[in-house]
Amino acid sequence: MKILVINAGSSSIKYQLFEMSDRSVLAAGLVERIGEALGHLKHKTPKHPDIEQEAPIPDHQEGLNRVVQLLLDPETGVITSPDEITAVGHRVVHGGEKFSAPTVINTEVLEVIDALSALAPLHNPANLTGIQVAMKLFPHATQVAIFDTAFHQTMPAHAYRYAIPNELYEQNHVRVYGFHGTSHLYVSKAAAAHLGKPLTATNLITAHLGNGASITAVSQGRSVDTSMGFSPLPGLIMGTRSGDVDPAVIFHLANVQGMSIAEIDKLLNKQSGLLGLCGDNDLRDIERRVDEGDAAATLAFEMYAYRIRKYVGAYTAALGQVDALVFTAGVGENSPAIREAVCTGLDALGYALDLEKNAAGKTGSVTEIQAAESRAKILVISTNEELEIALQTEAVLNGD
Amino acid sequence: MKILVINAGSSSIKYQLFEMSDRSVLAAGLVERIGEALGHLKHKTPKHPDIEQEAPIPDHQEGLNRVVQLLLDPETGVITSPDEITAVGHRVVHGGEKFSAPTVINTEVLEVIDALSALAPLHNPANLTGIQVAMKLFPHATQVAIFDTAFHQTMPAHAYRYAIPNELYEQNHVRVYGFHGTSHLYVSKAAAAHLGKPLTATNLITAHLGNGASITAVSQGRSVDTSMGFSPLPGLIMGTRSGDVDPAVIFHLANVQGMSIAEIDKLLNKQSGLLGLCGDNDLRDIERRVDEGDAAATLAFEMYAYRIRKYVGAYTAALGQVDALVFTAGVGENSPAIREAVCTGLDALGYALDLEKNAAGKTGSVTEIQAAESRAKILVISTNEELEIALQTEAVLNGD
Repeated sequence: MKILVINAGSSSIKYQLFEMSDRSVLAAGLVERIGEALGHLKHKTPKHPDIEQEAPIPDHQEGLNRVVQLLLDPETGVITSPDEITAVGHRVVHGGEKFSAPTVINTEVLEVIDALSALAPLHNPANLTGIQVAMKLFPHATQVAIFDTAFHQTMPAHAYRYAIPNELYEQNHVRVYGFHGTSHLYVSKAAAAHLGKPLTATNLITAHLGNGASITAVSQGRSVDTSMGFSPLPGLIMGTRSGDVDPAVIFHLANVQGMSIAEIDKLLNKQSGLLGLCGDNDLRDIERRVDEGDAAATLAFEMYAYRIRKYVGAYTAALGQVDALVFTAGVGENSPAIREAVCTGLDALGYALDLEKNAAGKTGSVTEIQAAESRAKILVISTNEELEIALQTEAVLNGD
Repeated sequence: MKILVINAGSSSIKYQLFEMSDRSVLAAGLVERIGEALGHLKHKTPKHPDIEQEAPIPDHQEGLNRVVQLLLDPETGVITSPDEITAVGHRVVHGGEKFSAPTVINTEVLEVIDALSALAPLHNPANLTGIQVAMKLFPHATQVAIFDTAFHQTMPAHAYRYAIPNELYEQNHVRVYGFHGTSHLYVSKAAAAHLGKPLTATNLITAHLGNGASITAVSQGRSVDTSMGFSPLPGLIMGTRSGDVDPAVIFHLANVQGMSIAEIDKLLNKQSGLLGLCGDNDLRDIERRVDEGDAAATLAFEMYAYRIRKYVGAYTAALGQVDALVFTAGVGENSPAIREAVCTGLDALGYALDLEKNAAGKTGSVTEIQAAESRAKILVISTNEELEIALQTEAVLNGD
């Protein structure tokens, strides 16, 4: 069975085509700068050189058209008809309180995803466009929506509610939703498998540290708290997002600095985080500057690690007992320095790093890096959101 | 030596007159509703019945005039001349980065406190008025300012900075200041004394749970992190303040609900917290409703405790090793139910409550309530901000 995974952004489409029998990737790529003067497409297959195209790509329809042409190409293609694709799994950012599981898309589902655009104005409309185009190009495939928020729908009310007037929750749906759910679930399953325990008997803290970053408390396989909230802004420090900040800073910037809501929104989401602190948003560049003794980069690094460390403590308190602390995504998988800064001195909480194993880094899809005396395991796990979307799509088809 | 402590709000003056030789309170009281149609004054002395007055009190000058008359009253008074008062200690909310210690007030200090009104528009102007009136009525007394933010000025940059553009800190002074410093310091000293350790060798987590609430990580006697921030809004859930909330909720309320900044400010500071969740802001009322099975009150109670619990975990991670967890102020000193909800299941983090001792409550100024196996002590300590202000004022006079 072949499943195509699509992650449509406002001006981009990421895709991967899986052969599910062996979970192999037949093709993968990225269409970028849709609607700009010059679009860009990069397409990879295991047996042929990468293909790059530069040309105007006016809309998502044209973008996905080009992908289909490449998939069908007589020479370098991997399928001979669109109908070979049994299902398309779509990443959808916001599922609200409606969707806590992968969902076969029909007219009603489309309407709900559209309505949820009020909560995710930057993401859901783009996701919806991707779905609509895919329905045209793959009319016989089952279209399945996989929601970034779904895994977190198991959170208890004391974790997902804000201490604001009730009607803002009941009528306006203001609550913690959480994001990166597909990744947190994927590494949770991988951690439980590695530990040889059923997921439903496993307590984890999963730190997804990419350009966006979030950390989740997983109790008996279920998300019970997570650092992103109503939006992807709060929690950990990210590439350009502030993470947690006193909401009254917004009042001050508006009242005293005369900034508009739109300007402050942009400030906290696009100009803050590591970028705002030191001018770089890639932790690899920052670590290089730390080695050179750069003060701003050093502060940014310390704040980034300290924020994670506090969440590890908070979620250890939330869970009581933790089987493993999991690091994943770009920074989590590849920065021994961050993992060391987060874990050093946490012995009393149950986390003791083996510095050599940590420095050596990943040796496989799951790597243990804790010291012998550590109460909890400390794991580096390679995340794979696209595969998780494909697996969940397959599960829906199988009626699981 | 007699020291008068003054805490001036926008329409109120709280005061206590101390005899420092035995730290006794000679008189204490509260002037309320200054500037309203009918003001109110309540004055207590150990040897006479309480005195209550209802009359128009147009301004702080008239309010403090009435206090002086009562202190000097031939029958019920406790002094015979204003000059018996050696010093006046003033609570000042915001000392910015300028003041990290009690400070004798002169013209320059007055100017700085005034300038800091930009950061504390609700509090510093009222504190300033109180100082100016006291300077007139007690012209021979030394006037000393005790800042709510001072204790937290020892925080390291990785704790006090936000991940927002640098210039907002460097030019606009946006950072974590923290508040309740006088109380956190007072109970820290009391805890260290009880433990028989120098304060400078003591690690503590101090939870000040009053109508306002904050929690502080104290490393070797110094504040290294605290839950309030740039303003007193973030952190723990309070009577009417939300505590931590995704800043993007503000963008949503402005963009989608059409609320103004002033309305959202009022919403998060005055209509949120316990009040917003269940209609009551006094935890005693909420606990009564919990006992009756009220769902909204139960959720508010659970959220209140869970928020504290997460901060205890976070600050345990920040400190590494903790000598004692301290509960203080109205709720902290008087609610066994909250203390139990915070601590239950934290054994692995080093906190195990003795349920009987916890239920029995305070037996003195410092009460141990941990179980024998608890790694950290758990202490209930009566806070006394007025006495701490008097002691710091005395220390300034003594040149300490």
